[in-house]
Amino acid sequence: MSAIPRSLLQLINDLTQLPSIGEKSATRLAYHMVTQNSDSAKTLAQSIIKACNEVTLCSDCFALSESKQCSICSNTARDRKIICAVEKPIDLFAIEKLSEYKGLYHVLHGVWSPLKGIGRAELRIDQLLKRALDINCCEIIIATSVTVDGDATALYISKLLAEHGIKTSRLAQGMPKGGELEYADELTLSRAFSGRRPIIA
Amino acid sequence: MSAIPRSLLQLINDLTQLPSIGEKSATRLAYHMVTQNSDSAKTLAQSIIKACNEVTLCSDCFALSESKQCSICSNTARDRKIICAVEKPIDLFAIEKLSEYKGLYHVLHGVWSPLKGIGRAELRIDQLLKRALDINCCEIIIATSVTVDGDATALYISKLLAEHGIKTSRLAQGMPKGGELEYADELTLSRAFSGRRPIIA
Repeated sequence: MSAIPRSLLQLINDLTQLPSIGEKSATRLAYHMVTQNSDSAKTLAQSIIKACNEVTLCSDCFALSESKQCSICSNTARDRKIICAVEKPIDLFAIEKLSEYKGLYHVLHGVWSPLKGIGRAELRIDQLLKRALDINCCEIIIATSVTVDGDATALYISKLLAEHGIKTSRLAQGMPKGGELEYADELTLSRAFSGRRPIIA
Repeated sequence: MSAIPRSLLQLINDLTQLPSIGEKSATRLAYHMVTQNSDSAKTLAQSIIKACNEVTLCSDCFALSESKQCSICSNTARDRKIICAVEKPIDLFAIEKLSEYKGLYHVLHGVWSPLKGIGRAELRIDQLLKRALDINCCEIIIATSVTVDGDATALYISKLLAEHGIKTSRLAQGMPKGGELEYADELTLSRAFSGRRPIIA
C-alpha cells in the first residue's frame, strides 16, 4: 500500500505527461499544489480547461486564436502585402515580441517530411498559395527553423510559389549575437561566410 | 493588442506561479496543452481539482491522506514503538520509497523558527509528545534537514521530549555515496569525522 494518496499519485502521473517534467519535478509540483495554495491550483485547473476550450485556429493563418479570425488577420493596420510562414504558433509569438514585423502570418504546423506523411496538405500550403494570390502578396518570408527539415520545407515552398510568380525569402543565417568563432559550428560559419555583407555599402 | 489569445496568456500566467516554472517553460507547457493533446490537458485539470479536494492531513501524523487516518497510521503491521519526525510530507514519501523503515511518522510542516512565528504549536510538537506518551514510544527519530534550522528544530524537540523521558535520535551525518573528499564542504567533513565508526567492530 503506497503512502502517497491515490489522487496525488494520479496528479503526479498526469504531470509527467507534460514535456520536460520528470517524476521528481511532477512530485514537487503536485505536492506544492495540494499543500501550499490549493486555491491557486484550482484556478490553474480552470485556466487549463478554459484555454483548451476557447483556443482554436484562425481560419486564415492557422495561428492560435479565440475567434474565427485572429487578432493579427483582423487588424487592418497590418501590412497585407507580406506573409511570414512559421512552423509553430509559438514561433509567431517570438516574432511578435520584437514588434518589428508588421505583416501577416501563416502557421504551417510542422515541417515538410514525406516519410512522416507531412506534405502539401498537412502544411496548408495550398491555403498559403491561395491567400498569397488573393491578397496579391509581394513577398513570403519563410521563417522555418534552421534545420535540415526546416531548410527542405523552405525550398519546397519556395519552388512551388515561384511557379506562380510569388517571391519568397528566408531569414538571414550567420553568427548569433555573442557568438564566438572558436565555438561556432561548421554550418553556421559556412553560412555566415556565404551571406557576408559589405561593412560600408 | 497581443497576438497571444487571452485565455492562453492567463494560463501562462497561472503556470508561472508554480515553483521553478519561468515564463519560457510556462509558455511551452501552455502551448503544448492547447495544441498537442487537449484531452490529456483537461484530464490533468480534473486531477488537480480532485487532488486539491480529496487530499487532507491525517489527524494523527499530519501526513497527506485522503481519509481521516492515513494508510500508515491505520496499518496495524507498522511498528508502533517508533516515530520518525519529518519536515514535509514529501520527505515521508522519500523514506517510504526505501521500504526499510517500518515505524510511524509525524509531519512537522516546517522547522522551528521563532522569528517567522513557527514554534511549538505550528510544528504540532504537543501532538507529537502526546502521541509518544500514549503509545509508549521507545524512540523518536528526528529526520529534519541537515541545515541550521533543521538542526535547531531537532535540538529543540529533543530537549523537550527528554524532559518526559522520551529518547530521540538524529539521522547519521557524513559523506554521501559517491562523495569525494576533495569536494566535500567543511561541515559535512567535520561531521563525518566526529561520527566515524570502527571498520571491524
